[in-house]
Amino acid sequence: MARVTERVVVIGGDAAGMSAAATARRQAGDRLEIVVLERGPWTSYSACGIPYWLAGHVDGPEGLVARTPQEHRDNGIDVRTAAAATAIDVRARTVTVATEGSESLLPYDQLVLATGAQPVVPDVPGADAIGVHGVQTLDDGCRLLDTLGHLDESRPRRAVIVGAGYIGVEMAEACVVRGLETTLLDQADEPMGTIDDDLARMVRDAMQGMGIRTVMGTPVEAFETGADGRVTAVATPGRSYPADLVVLGIGVLPRSELARAAGLPLGCSGGIRTEPSMTVPGHPGVWAAGDCVESWDRVRRDFTHVPLGTHANKQGRVVGHNLSGGHLVFAGVLGTGITKVCDVEIGRTGLSHSMAESEGRDPVSATIETTTKAGYFPGAEPMTVRLTAEAGGLLLGGQIVGRAGSALRIDTVATALWAGMSVHDLVDLDLAYAPPFSSVWDPVQVAARSLLGRLR
Amino acid sequence: MARVTERVVVIGGDAAGMSAAATARRQAGDRLEIVVLERGPWTSYSACGIPYWLAGHVDGPEGLVARTPQEHRDNGIDVRTAAAATAIDVRARTVTVATEGSESLLPYDQLVLATGAQPVVPDVPGADAIGVHGVQTLDDGCRLLDTLGHLDESRPRRAVIVGAGYIGVEMAEACVVRGLETTLLDQADEPMGTIDDDLARMVRDAMQGMGIRTVMGTPVEAFETGADGRVTAVATPGRSYPADLVVLGIGVLPRSELARAAGLPLGCSGGIRTEPSMTVPGHPGVWAAGDCVESWDRVRRDFTHVPLGTHANKQGRVVGHNLSGGHLVFAGVLGTGITKVCDVEIGRTGLSHSMAESEGRDPVSATIETTTKAGYFPGAEPMTVRLTAEAGGLLLGGQIVGRAGSALRIDTVATALWAGMSVHDLVDLDLAYAPPFSSVWDPVQVAARSLLGRLR
Repeated sequence: MARVTERVVVIGGDAAGMSAAATARRQAGDRLEIVVLERGPWTSYSACGIPYWLAGHVDGPEGLVARTPQEHRDNGIDVRTAAAATAIDVRARTVTVATEGSESLLPYDQLVLATGAQPVVPDVPGADAIGVHGVQTLDDGCRLLDTLGHLDESRPRRAVIVGAGYIGVEMAEACVVRGLETTLLDQADEPMGTIDDDLARMVRDAMQGMGIRTVMGTPVEAFETGADGRVTAVATPGRSYPADLVVLGIGVLPRSELARAAGLPLGCSGGIRTEPSMTVPGHPGVWAAGDCVESWDRVRRDFTHVPLGTHANKQGRVVGHNLSGGHLVFAGVLGTGITKVCDVEIGRTGLSHSMAESEGRDPVSATIETTTKAGYFPGAEPMTVRLTAEAGGLLLGGQIVGRAGSALRIDTVATALWAGMSVHDLVDLDLAYAPPFSSVWDPVQVAARSLLGRLR
Repeated sequence: MARVTERVVVIGGDAAGMSAAATARRQAGDRLEIVVLERGPWTSYSACGIPYWLAGHVDGPEGLVARTPQEHRDNGIDVRTAAAATAIDVRARTVTVATEGSESLLPYDQLVLATGAQPVVPDVPGADAIGVHGVQTLDDGCRLLDTLGHLDESRPRRAVIVGAGYIGVEMAEACVVRGLETTLLDQADEPMGTIDDDLARMVRDAMQGMGIRTVMGTPVEAFETGADGRVTAVATPGRSYPADLVVLGIGVLPRSELARAAGLPLGCSGGIRTEPSMTVPGHPGVWAAGDCVESWDRVRRDFTHVPLGTHANKQGRVVGHNLSGGHLVFAGVLGTGITKVCDVEIGRTGLSHSMAESEGRDPVSATIETTTKAGYFPGAEPMTVRLTAEAGGLLLGGQIVGRAGSALRIDTVATALWAGMSVHDLVDLDLAYAPPFSSVWDPVQVAARSLLGRLR
């Protein structure tokens, strides 16, 4: 190459891509020319904030943007919005870039794939109807608000959410807060597939308590549409649920088609495979990060697709360091997650009991009911903690469901799990205690003691 | 001994003693006769709750009792209240027990010392005046309320708190909440000696904001008294502070005189020495637990006196298991602590920067300002996190000062510290993220990243 500086091309301008770009800029200074190609108009935004924007709790879409394209440009990053990468030639080291009305070849020295994920769309009739929305990008949020704007305020407005995972339950709450008649549909027996059914039942009860109709164990057969092509109902085997608006919360898949077409290796999950350094195996100078890759699960000891902003940011940071000469690794994930529905908080990490069973880990679990503060303290709220371990005592995971002040305690379990602690170790920990914050035995340790009793 | 069952005598009926007794009862069934000698009328109470009782936030004294003497008796533990152990003969294996008007010898097979701690009383004139109170037992709390009851409601009632540690700041808040003119005095430059001065300054500002006068860098020379023997003022080199009530919050010392007189080994702190099994070295069958012992500090790698209900409960549990044939160990402490003053929460673990400096650990620290939730989320409150590490990256400690929702995050740092993690490890952790709970980079990890930058 004739250029003195190397050119890094980053495909995707959200968490992973912009973290990589910004980190590389900081680490490498002017030694690197950094070009970011982003299909949409936004960079560095919080997709996780979209349900709260739609609920009216936070301002959007601008309020969810941590750093605009112009702010990144001011930091010396060549951000090109409305620029879609349509092909990669890994031998020639070029990316084909489509902008409005034209297509061009952009050569690179190093390439970062940060193409994100895309909502799963069920393979049933009407899935492409007007009014059926995924929630993945700020533009998705804008389109969803457009649909809401089209609805006649004078008659009941009905939302059906398909899929009761994190996005599904958060969107169901957003819809009911906006005054819509809201139905949450899922094939599974309970919402929140990453926690055990009996705990998920508590979440379902909370949703019903705030007026969300939950319809479980029910697959979608079709989206019915009117003459104008708009969705009118969601058809299931038993009956049809009228809908002016449908939100898809079935999950997301890695947006890895571009990588696959370029001959880059994908894993079983469909995510791009990476080394711990986040380089793509067999392709030095090609990196991938964020929702488009699969990550190492430290508990399951296998690769998995965990689309989450935290991992995207961490992986982007690793890429940014390494492509500018650093030697960081991404150390894997535990599957830690947290959310809140109405007045119920949910935190989880590692394996649930049922996940551990289906993995053949012969798990033992204990579940305790306690309070978020000393029992005698005003504002002490109920919380339930479940810990799961192998029969030998190695911690496998934890789940917390409770009122305000419960769920963040999952970080104690996540940190212990990360360190490979046993249930004995958990009991020994020197955790913080004062009556406004905890009982004298921390809730996590009460659960650990109970679990020890079952291990013996 | 002719008895079929062994007799265990426990001296002290609060957290450590009753945890030991109740655990032994559960583990050993009827094989052990368990006698608990308690000087006062209460068992198993939350001394940590006393400031909140005096503030009127919780009911006391009964409300702070987790289990009454009768409840313990119903569980098969022979609790004797108003029974003071006045001497131990470790050769003859007897305890001298003083009850009202009589003294007797009680033989034991195994002995548990759980005599607690006593407030430090400054060695100045008037320290024994009426109206000068320690806050260590429920009876102390009752006496303090008596003093308040004696005060004439029609004129200003003035409280002076001597010592600005945990108890001092909590009692200062309780007094100002009760409508007293409250002054907090300490020799040190800032309150909360276990956190660095600049962070403590934030706590001091919060106290001043709620109307507490803070007088730092000021020793007490005398407690002035009236003709009736009641305290009237606290004299310092510069001036005298009128006081109808004085609360001592200078700290506590192990109540180990009985053990010392019996020839049991004490450490430099004055606390009873113990093995990891909580047996007293050289005295098989003699155990000690709680505020009367010194504990192994895993970070300082030395013994230290950390009087805290969590350790007392854990050590009591270890004793109860081991005296009935178990093999547990008490794995040490980190110095984790938490409290709240007005609307400011304080959490800390391990070494502060200044503590690490005075230990010669050549520390590096980083301090960051962030928010308790995603910055764009309603109710996001400011919080400050400081992490301290050795130059090589080994984590030494953490401190958090902030608004509601800040301080419990110290448990993440405490768990990482317990596991011997480096600052790099902290950045890698898979912690919980959703906008209502956190920024996408957890506050602890933002601090860890900042600290990494300083280590390089």
